[in-house]
Amino acid sequence: MTARTDAPVDPAPGAPEPAAPSAAALAAVLADLRAALPADAVVTDPEALRDRARDGSATPPTGDPVALVLPSGTPEVSAVLRAAHAHGVPVVPQGALSGLAGGANAVPGAILLSTARMTAIRRIDPVDQVAVVQPGVVTKDLVDAVAAQGLFYPPDPASYAWSTVGGNIATNAGGMRCVKYGVTRDFVRALEVVLADGTVVRTAPGTVKAVAGLDLTGLVVGSEGTLAVVTEATLGLLPAPGPDRGVCATFATVADALAAANAVVASPHRPSTLELLDDVVLAALVAYDPDAGLPAGAAAMLLAITDEAGARGAADVAAYEAVVRAHGALTVDVAHEPERLDALLRARRSFNQAMRAVRGGSINEDVAVPRTRLADLLDRLADVSAQVGLPIGTGGHVGDGNLHPVIAFDPADPAQVAAAAEAHQRVLGLAVELGGTVTGEHGIGTEKRSALAGELGDRVLAIQRGIKAVLDPAGILNPGKKL
Amino acid sequence: MTARTDAPVDPAPGAPEPAAPSAAALAAVLADLRAALPADAVVTDPEALRDRARDGSATPPTGDPVALVLPSGTPEVSAVLRAAHAHGVPVVPQGALSGLAGGANAVPGAILLSTARMTAIRRIDPVDQVAVVQPGVVTKDLVDAVAAQGLFYPPDPASYAWSTVGGNIATNAGGMRCVKYGVTRDFVRALEVVLADGTVVRTAPGTVKAVAGLDLTGLVVGSEGTLAVVTEATLGLLPAPGPDRGVCATFATVADALAAANAVVASPHRPSTLELLDDVVLAALVAYDPDAGLPAGAAAMLLAITDEAGARGAADVAAYEAVVRAHGALTVDVAHEPERLDALLRARRSFNQAMRAVRGGSINEDVAVPRTRLADLLDRLADVSAQVGLPIGTGGHVGDGNLHPVIAFDPADPAQVAAAAEAHQRVLGLAVELGGTVTGEHGIGTEKRSALAGELGDRVLAIQRGIKAVLDPAGILNPGKKL
Repeated sequence: MTARTDAPVDPAPGAPEPAAPSAAALAAVLADLRAALPADAVVTDPEALRDRARDGSATPPTGDPVALVLPSGTPEVSAVLRAAHAHGVPVVPQGALSGLAGGANAVPGAILLSTARMTAIRRIDPVDQVAVVQPGVVTKDLVDAVAAQGLFYPPDPASYAWSTVGGNIATNAGGMRCVKYGVTRDFVRALEVVLADGTVVRTAPGTVKAVAGLDLTGLVVGSEGTLAVVTEATLGLLPAPGPDRGVCATFATVADALAAANAVVASPHRPSTLELLDDVVLAALVAYDPDAGLPAGAAAMLLAITDEAGARGAADVAAYEAVVRAHGALTVDVAHEPERLDALLRARRSFNQAMRAVRGGSINEDVAVPRTRLADLLDRLADVSAQVGLPIGTGGHVGDGNLHPVIAFDPADPAQVAAAAEAHQRVLGLAVELGGTVTGEHGIGTEKRSALAGELGDRVLAIQRGIKAVLDPAGILNPGKKL
Repeated sequence: MTARTDAPVDPAPGAPEPAAPSAAALAAVLADLRAALPADAVVTDPEALRDRARDGSATPPTGDPVALVLPSGTPEVSAVLRAAHAHGVPVVPQGALSGLAGGANAVPGAILLSTARMTAIRRIDPVDQVAVVQPGVVTKDLVDAVAAQGLFYPPDPASYAWSTVGGNIATNAGGMRCVKYGVTRDFVRALEVVLADGTVVRTAPGTVKAVAGLDLTGLVVGSEGTLAVVTEATLGLLPAPGPDRGVCATFATVADALAAANAVVASPHRPSTLELLDDVVLAALVAYDPDAGLPAGAAAMLLAITDEAGARGAADVAAYEAVVRAHGALTVDVAHEPERLDALLRARRSFNQAMRAVRGGSINEDVAVPRTRLADLLDRLADVSAQVGLPIGTGGHVGDGNLHPVIAFDPADPAQVAAAAEAHQRVLGLAVELGGTVTGEHGIGTEKRSALAGELGDRVLAIQRGIKAVLDPAGILNPGKKL
């Protein structure tokens, strides 16, 4: 999604870095993989490997992979892990390569383990309200399949039309509906995973409630492929909601928009989506997608959507309209028609592309702070923009305090590339300084490793590396990522 | 809460059992504790220790404690842990002793670490919708304090009027509202914890979304004091709901009641509470609390409550009434008046006491299965009851598939005590056999350790013990519990 600027990979002080396996180990692992998998499931063509070496982040892979494997199920994943474990070869689990933090990038000598052939939806149960799926299922395919049975899988990262359930689990993906429904972790009841040595285990029974063990399910969710490879997920579902309806308002100041957002969240009319776009983003979107009919010239836009049916939804929309008017909205667009709302959501979803179009390159940040610090965050981002001399447009999930500042720069201009890297570090520092996190939903990957110790503290980071070592003592699972 | 039958502690094959510290270690730790804490915060009076040696479970402590400590804040908790760590003395964190699995029971030579003096509500923020509290706060006190600011803390274990937030976190407590709002873990944003060596760390920044590290917060929640001692919790809140209103219906068969429950869960009218009581429980309750006005003589009772305000709540109640009538309800009681609903809820909350009154003693089980297996569960529980010759009354959170079979027995009759122990093991086996868990919300403690390997599998249990060892390498935190 972002320009491939080949910025240097963020160093993580003290982190174990992956060493390239020996030529002998690579030859041996290839032989094992070819013996265990169908011929077309082990790809070593250099061009194919290049195509799969990198996700959607701004940082390049740290080395060339040895093979791409395409297992079709749990036994083949287990065989891949056994081979990798036996020869000390790193494994990088990959979904749709839609990640924005380098979590799926290749590392030296890695086996790229793609879930592209693991796309079965095994079971949808309307009484238990669960779906059991393989990790390669595209999230939208799952959403559509359960909707056909009157059910609802809420997590909707912006990439949900092409990203996979496995990738969403690896990053604990968020999206626009978290303000009402929570994140991916809140919908994962149980996982079947393959451990680093190839052993297959289940993390939990899959019931709504279960407290027998430690929360291994929640630990694997968001671990970015560093603890185990997910081969099956039992996901919680809800009854289908009503149609989306909402209010889009613009404001003369960001403060007004934030106050309106806080009033919506404090009301009994919980929105299913509550999104903010600032003036820089609005201007970029008006230029990028003139047909979307976005209001131009405002300091901020707020989009509040409900998915409650019938009279409930109508009452929600009326409440949002009253709130934005009470907070001095410049324009108020009550979007009852699906087409209008779709246009607004399409524009919202393309804001990263619109910001990239400003200068040709972009870094998509993902900070989250307490809602009470959002005004400070936006003020300080304007300072960073002025200091480095690059546009920073910010928008996103204001109801969660999770915004995406997008730094625009010209990737052909070394001075701008350096300024963008400087802005990146300042934004990460700002998030932690304001009591927040450097990543609300994208993950650490390779792109934000330098910020990890600062956010977690050395002791917590050491504990997390200790936990990683319990599950992956040889360090073959996505080494050089996250921790 | 259950009779103190002094049944033998459940052995956990392969688990490290706590060894009693030497007399020298105990003397040394007492000296350190007295040097670090106020005189009245270190209690060694044998009678006081006996009073605090045991929680509400049916299993006795495994040994005598050396001291009860009453730290008033994080620095004193840290001092206690440093002393314990230096001398290899076990520490048992304790809240209100309302636990039902022996998790807070004493072990040989243990320091009982009570949170009774850590009852500060530090901050309630209506914009961020968080409360920051010490672990000794009684859950109902928190609920009342946030309600005074128009906010809502949903977790409501049956003990919430006397159990503590810290204890709720230790067990990942559930309650009656989980069917709509989820469990305690879903409301814990971040924790300050003291590690086994006395180091104080924070698990997360406390934002709504945060994916920088592994989910250490979720790992500590439900760990029953085995990983760290919680000294402060940042809890998520919601806007205050409307008043409770509901429908209480009885049915001629359990199958009808289960079908009605499933229809309610499948509808867009999500209840905030959905509880089932079977015929054995109903009969016990009618005898125990004749004034509650419970319908007698039915095979099952279903209670569906909404907490939506105004027209939304009215529509929910109408929907529940239509559902229960469509499923052949014998009696339908639409409880719009708070007094009537309170009486029904009070009766529901006292069902364990009512079952204990049947024979003088009871074991309160806590199984959870997929909703599709509830009918099988109830059938099989009737078989167990017939086989062992003891009444088993079952009720609880049918919307979550989490029911509490209560085994009634006469603690003065050795044959009945043995039969109850046999029934206990059969119920645990049944839960796992039906694809569920031996504990949905009470925890493992000492009471269900024999069932842990069967539910988790040896490898997952070994991983969890490995994680425990990362956080507590000396094994001083609540040894002999859970894992």
